Amino acid sequence: MKNHYEAHQLLILSKDSIVYKQTIEQAGFSNLSILAVDEPGEAIRFGGESDLLFGDPSLACQVINLIPSIRWYQSSWAGIEALVLPGMRTDYLLTNARNVYGEMMSEYVFGYLLMIERQILPRWQSQLKHIWDERPSGTLKGKWIGLLGVGSIGSHLAITAHHLGMHVLGYTRISESCTNVDQYFHGNEILDFVSKLDYLVCSLPYTPTTKGMINANLLSYIPTKAWLINIGRGSTVDETALREALNYGKIAGAVLDVFDVEPLPDGHPFWDTPNTYITSHTAAKNYLPDIADLFIENYKLFINGKSLKYLVNFEQHY
Amino acid sequence: MKNHYEAHQLLILSKDSIVYKQTIEQAGFSNLSILAVDEPGEAIRFGGESDLLFGDPSLACQVINLIPSIRWYQSSWAGIEALVLPGMRTDYLLTNARNVYGEMMSEYVFGYLLMIERQILPRWQSQLKHIWDERPSGTLKGKWIGLLGVGSIGSHLAITAHHLGMHVLGYTRISESCTNVDQYFHGNEILDFVSKLDYLVCSLPYTPTTKGMINANLLSYIPTKAWLINIGRGSTVDETALREALNYGKIAGAVLDVFDVEPLPDGHPFWDTPNTYITSHTAAKNYLPDIADLFIENYKLFINGKSLKYLVNFEQHY
Repeated sequence: MKNHYEAHQLLILSKDSIVYKQTIEQAGFSNLSILAVDEPGEAIRFGGESDLLFGDPSLACQVINLIPSIRWYQSSWAGIEALVLPGMRTDYLLTNARNVYGEMMSEYVFGYLLMIERQILPRWQSQLKHIWDERPSGTLKGKWIGLLGVGSIGSHLAITAHHLGMHVLGYTRISESCTNVDQYFHGNEILDFVSKLDYLVCSLPYTPTTKGMINANLLSYIPTKAWLINIGRGSTVDETALREALNYGKIAGAVLDVFDVEPLPDGHPFWDTPNTYITSHTAAKNYLPDIADLFIENYKLFINGKSLKYLVNFEQHY
Repeated sequence: MKNHYEAHQLLILSKDSIVYKQTIEQAGFSNLSILAVDEPGEAIRFGGESDLLFGDPSLACQVINLIPSIRWYQSSWAGIEALVLPGMRTDYLLTNARNVYGEMMSEYVFGYLLMIERQILPRWQSQLKHIWDERPSGTLKGKWIGLLGVGSIGSHLAITAHHLGMHVLGYTRISESCTNVDQYFHGNEILDFVSKLDYLVCSLPYTPTTKGMINANLLSYIPTKAWLINIGRGSTVDETALREALNYGKIAGAVLDVFDVEPLPDGHPFWDTPNTYITSHTAAKNYLPDIADLFIENYKLFINGKSLKYLVNFEQHY
């Protein structure tokens, strides 16, 4: 308990800094002073003595090297690519946001999967024409979902998929820790893994090894009835190969929240690719109270000298 | 075990009779002869000696009085109004389809709820205009769902709602058997029940007492932020009062699968009522294997002289 009474200076740097500050203040930590800003310039001007940092990686990456007193940075996002670029400091504790995204991602993924199965969009188009549309619905029950990546997001997807009566396959490097995966695949079993799916959901983070993993060869093994959902990083997909697969009906469709270039430019061919739903990297917009709770939970561990949750390995990028 | 070796003649009368027959034949009952037809005339012509009937109420109601040898009728649907009209036989065992609908109804209800929260439709409209649409999403987590009727369908909705982190209120006549309901309301507590909801989901069957239950007064107690989802029977809703509530923004919107008159006529004002999604009584189209399994399960009880599941009380209509 040696750190319990030590004073700490927390810098909150986020576009949601005000909400985060309110939530953390309500936790009532006695020796914690809090500065909340939404702009890197202000962070450097007023927060140069801070030892703790909490907030958005897109902003934090602009200050982390300039405030050497920071000993621990709690990211408010899962993706921390910007913090592991060459030349960035690695002499501090970096923790990211994990379990908080599972629920939001589940709502996104199963929102789209159910929209597809229940044919909500064509039914609505019938409604506009006053047509009593009795087309049959599909069902997720009994269908096969493949999780490319079974981290905290994939694990939550697995629970919801099981709840809805789906068969759940998982592809991971080595981990088999999620008990809601019915069958695991690793290494060069990836073609086998995708070969009988109805839905392939990619939640892989950006790492050097995931880049271009969903390429023309892999896509050729995915059944023509199957949909691809990408909620991880755009770089995992060979976008040209995916567009070809969609244009020629080699797969049924795609739901894409992430792209090589974001925002997707106006003239980009993805906008008009058939059977493709485009969303704007909004699949897991922060559920703010949960993110703040994550900081609070980790801060309690920190002041008690215990190991932090969701510590990022700078080598592995996750 | 006295009935075990008795021979039975099963008449399957359904538009899905062929699928049902295949599934039931696969169960391999030794003394069961099966006739499968999809038309009442054929049923009467060839099935006049049958002691068991399985199939669709809309067809079964046309033959049940004409084939007095039928001792047990397993309905393939939940709604059995057509079988309890004045003048219909009541001297046989009537069982209906229950738990099989919960999963399909869950997919329907949460498909629409997630579409609403995730703003899938406006996002798709942005996509058509090549707009990178970063509008925030809502979340079902932490929201309040009210189940008007907590039978087998409502109970399944309660489980899924809890899985998604919702608060679950239930309104029933007396039952409090579903443990996934956080708080129950009965009798004249109905105005209190609806007063803090985000979503009101009605799965009530048709009975004399449910008719017009969702009237102008009840609608005036529902928060303006709330949506009504009706997957029970059209008669539960005063449709004129509902359209007024929708036209004047007194509630946020409606998802309606059932109507006073079905199919909804082309000129009906519901087609163009704002914030209203119309579906064509398709929320719980049979998941055929499950329905056949239900017959098989009950048939095993029947030949062993045990009580059947989902027995309908002719007085209460459920």
